[in-house]
Amino acid sequence: MTRIIAAALAILLLLTAAIAQEKNLAERLGYARDAKLLIVHADDLGMAHSVNAATIKALETGLVNSGSIMVPCPWLSEVAAFARANPQADLGLHLTLTSEWTSFRWGPVSSRDRVSSLLDKDGYFYLTESEAAAHADPNQVEMEITAQIERARALGIRPTHLDSHMGTLYQNKALFEVFLRVARKQKLPVRVARAWFARADFLPSTLTPDDVYIDRVLDINPTVAPQDWARFYTDALKKLEPGITEVVIHLAYDDAEMRAATSNHPDWGAAWRQRDFEFFTSDAFRKVLQENEIKLITWRELGKLIK
Amino acid sequence: MTRIIAAALAILLLLTAAIAQEKNLAERLGYARDAKLLIVHADDLGMAHSVNAATIKALETGLVNSGSIMVPCPWLSEVAAFARANPQADLGLHLTLTSEWTSFRWGPVSSRDRVSSLLDKDGYFYLTESEAAAHADPNQVEMEITAQIERARALGIRPTHLDSHMGTLYQNKALFEVFLRVARKQKLPVRVARAWFARADFLPSTLTPDDVYIDRVLDINPTVAPQDWARFYTDALKKLEPGITEVVIHLAYDDAEMRAATSNHPDWGAAWRQRDFEFFTSDAFRKVLQENEIKLITWRELGKLIK
Repeated sequence: MTRIIAAALAILLLLTAAIAQEKNLAERLGYARDAKLLIVHADDLGMAHSVNAATIKALETGLVNSGSIMVPCPWLSEVAAFARANPQADLGLHLTLTSEWTSFRWGPVSSRDRVSSLLDKDGYFYLTESEAAAHADPNQVEMEITAQIERARALGIRPTHLDSHMGTLYQNKALFEVFLRVARKQKLPVRVARAWFARADFLPSTLTPDDVYIDRVLDINPTVAPQDWARFYTDALKKLEPGITEVVIHLAYDDAEMRAATSNHPDWGAAWRQRDFEFFTSDAFRKVLQENEIKLITWRELGKLIK
Repeated sequence: MTRIIAAALAILLLLTAAIAQEKNLAERLGYARDAKLLIVHADDLGMAHSVNAATIKALETGLVNSGSIMVPCPWLSEVAAFARANPQADLGLHLTLTSEWTSFRWGPVSSRDRVSSLLDKDGYFYLTESEAAAHADPNQVEMEITAQIERARALGIRPTHLDSHMGTLYQNKALFEVFLRVARKQKLPVRVARAWFARADFLPSTLTPDDVYIDRVLDINPTVAPQDWARFYTDALKKLEPGITEVVIHLAYDDAEMRAATSNHPDWGAAWRQRDFEFFTSDAFRKVLQENEIKLITWRELGKLIK
């Protein structure tokens, strides 16, 4: 009996050692095991000209190095032209099932009568992610997000990753399963963070070891006062833990178009996006990256790990 | 025989007198027979925030007194809120079957697979009115323009008239017949000018005495140099003939949004629209109206003549 226990313990030790030696994601990307890796990701490309103009300018600095595109939105063609002219840019699709501003709206890429569960009484996507998730038929969601990917590809966009505008596709297990099924078919990584597992147990139970996901997402929220913007990001970056973090930001100019679009909605509004633009294109941001040995990576590199 | 000729001549004279005494449109509106009546009409509401902001500002001056709304466009909700708050405003629908800017596009209100003849390879309306007319199935046009009217009404817009963006619905007899059939069902007047009859004989042959139409449309064109803008309009207004004229203008600000929307298309572009805004909200325009005894009327008054 003692021998059997000893043998079992020996096997357990070997297994533990094997697991400990398995390369983590940083190592698989060619970095040290405890490297601090960051994707600086601007959401909402295609939504408005102001968003496109500020995000393209920020991408040109190299400090913002990734972004994702909203296919149903009116300014898609402008960002598609940028994508065609800059095939190296790390651009994904910000799959869209909500239309959150009240003066300025959009609806599906699919035929309306085939995705009626996604539409509000005015024929647009719902205003909020909770309304969208409450009404959405998962089959119609699959049809619509597939149509968004197909339209993007038809316009010459070669997406490197997928994420979900306002997190609609993480609202419940059925929607997340659709999202993951579509992403696997496309062989594209999706924005999923290990740090989210505690608050949604359908995430770890749906993922498999073959899926590629990051450690955490860093984003600012409405409790941060405008004058504390730079300090919030700087402190978070100084305390950054090893592993892969995506800082999710929202860029635009505080101009007439953006003020009108977000008029009754200061959170994620025009001034908010101008503040994000200013911090993430600043020398202060460049300095905090250098001083804290934070290395920028993109979804393109992560996507290469998908079999 | 002489008596018969005399009697016939007498009848002819009586008929001529009766026709001569029949009230013309100006008289039916309560003006003198030879009054110079003008509708100052801004097209393209709903297209962009810049268009909405400039047009609403111009409508508030009273010098621009009519406009029409593009239902498929992204900024419809903003102008619908204005229409609900200003039910007296003379707002019609600028029925839309084209999407003419390359960076910024829109498509149908109807389900896409039911109006496929209206869509280009990217799933938007065609760029030009000639492409749109060449491909359009009239039944699908009827479905789509009816859907645009229904969506406008559902948003609380009470249209006073109908017109056609880029003139697509005047491109051939089949499309014009659809346009007129829908307008008659809605009991709404459409933009048709007697001055157009010479260049499209399907217009007079399709219209009946019960239809209400105006004498002429005045619009500026790309041959006018920017510095001659005010002079062009002033000269045309000084020479205005009696009857009902609609001056069709395009208002927006020469700002970042509008420059990007119209970037490779200076005709009807951002600077063009700013020039229109400046002239039609100016004291010079007010003065030329007064000095030439030009009276402003709206489509609302014309619509009341429809039985």
